[in-house]
Amino acid sequence: MTKTLERRAKQREALIEAAEKAIFAKGLTGLKSRELATEIGVANGAVFNLVDDMDELILRVGSRTLARLDAALTAAESGGAPLPAEALVRIAVAYCDFAADNLELWRALFEHRMAPDKPVPDWAAEEQMNLFRHIYHPLSKLFPKWSADELGITARSLFASVHGMVSLGLEQKLIAVPVDALRAEIATIVKATIRGLN
Amino acid sequence: MTKTLERRAKQREALIEAAEKAIFAKGLTGLKSRELATEIGVANGAVFNLVDDMDELILRVGSRTLARLDAALTAAESGGAPLPAEALVRIAVAYCDFAADNLELWRALFEHRMAPDKPVPDWAAEEQMNLFRHIYHPLSKLFPKWSADELGITARSLFASVHGMVSLGLEQKLIAVPVDALRAEIATIVKATIRGLN
Repeated sequence: MTKTLERRAKQREALIEAAEKAIFAKGLTGLKSRELATEIGVANGAVFNLVDDMDELILRVGSRTLARLDAALTAAESGGAPLPAEALVRIAVAYCDFAADNLELWRALFEHRMAPDKPVPDWAAEEQMNLFRHIYHPLSKLFPKWSADELGITARSLFASVHGMVSLGLEQKLIAVPVDALRAEIATIVKATIRGLN
Repeated sequence: MTKTLERRAKQREALIEAAEKAIFAKGLTGLKSRELATEIGVANGAVFNLVDDMDELILRVGSRTLARLDAALTAAESGGAPLPAEALVRIAVAYCDFAADNLELWRALFEHRMAPDKPVPDWAAEEQMNLFRHIYHPLSKLFPKWSADELGITARSLFASVHGMVSLGLEQKLIAVPVDALRAEIATIVKATIRGLN
């Protein structure tokens, strides 16, 4: 029995890794449960003995992406002068770099929609919200008199604003910008916004 | 011959309007050429005598959406104090309102991807770029010494930043925000950014 459970855990891990590779290479639309089954050497239907459905599989891959993003933002936060305004600029630029280096996995975080009437599970929502601390923390040092609500709203707005610049900048559409130029633009806007909020 | 051309022009107009209604109600994924053919009373295949393909049809609907957005931004630009910083805030909030009121049509502008290796036609790209004048113009009054390049880059960044706040704010996902709160947040961030750029 223990061996069966162990084998199942290993297969599940292999499945999530295979899904991660597929999304990295081809995006969410490149994810086919049949191909994943072949890749990890199980029968077609057996994929859904390892995860509930495609939504869960995509969320598990997202969880790994968020953990790597978390590590990148942590490194950026502490990787320079401890001034909170500078830390916020580094964090914004690190977000841009992470998106550029993990384009399809990063896109999948935002493009994935749960099946209708199925809420995002709490564990996944918490992992997402948890990342806001990288913005909230330096902001709270910059604006020690602000309420938690004000800090939360501003953290959300700053994230959304940087996310917009990264998304449209890395898009192959309206506004394609070389990554170096994009980093510089993001730094300029984040610096200006923080200066203006003072 | 003239009558045939006239009828064709009317059918084409009816097709684009039917596609607009379908996208408004159900988003891009709700667009089915079969249903459109029934709606305007032509045979299934005849839709593609009126437009080249689905890409063209979606771009023609996008053209109508952009024209209405253009009108909304023009009204916002002139609808208050002529101070350029205030005009920029009004334009950003008008963009948010337009997106909220035309959610699926607005999403379609960004979600639509041309078939692989088919570039966006020049007329459609020009219509998109043309809208940047609403940001460029007040910016050039605020920063009269900046070069056209600097103004263009900042206009693009401001747009992307507001677009990010609107997209994530109106998303039913990570950060859903009531529209009134979203308008206030956008105004705060745009004001701060402009003040900080000074």
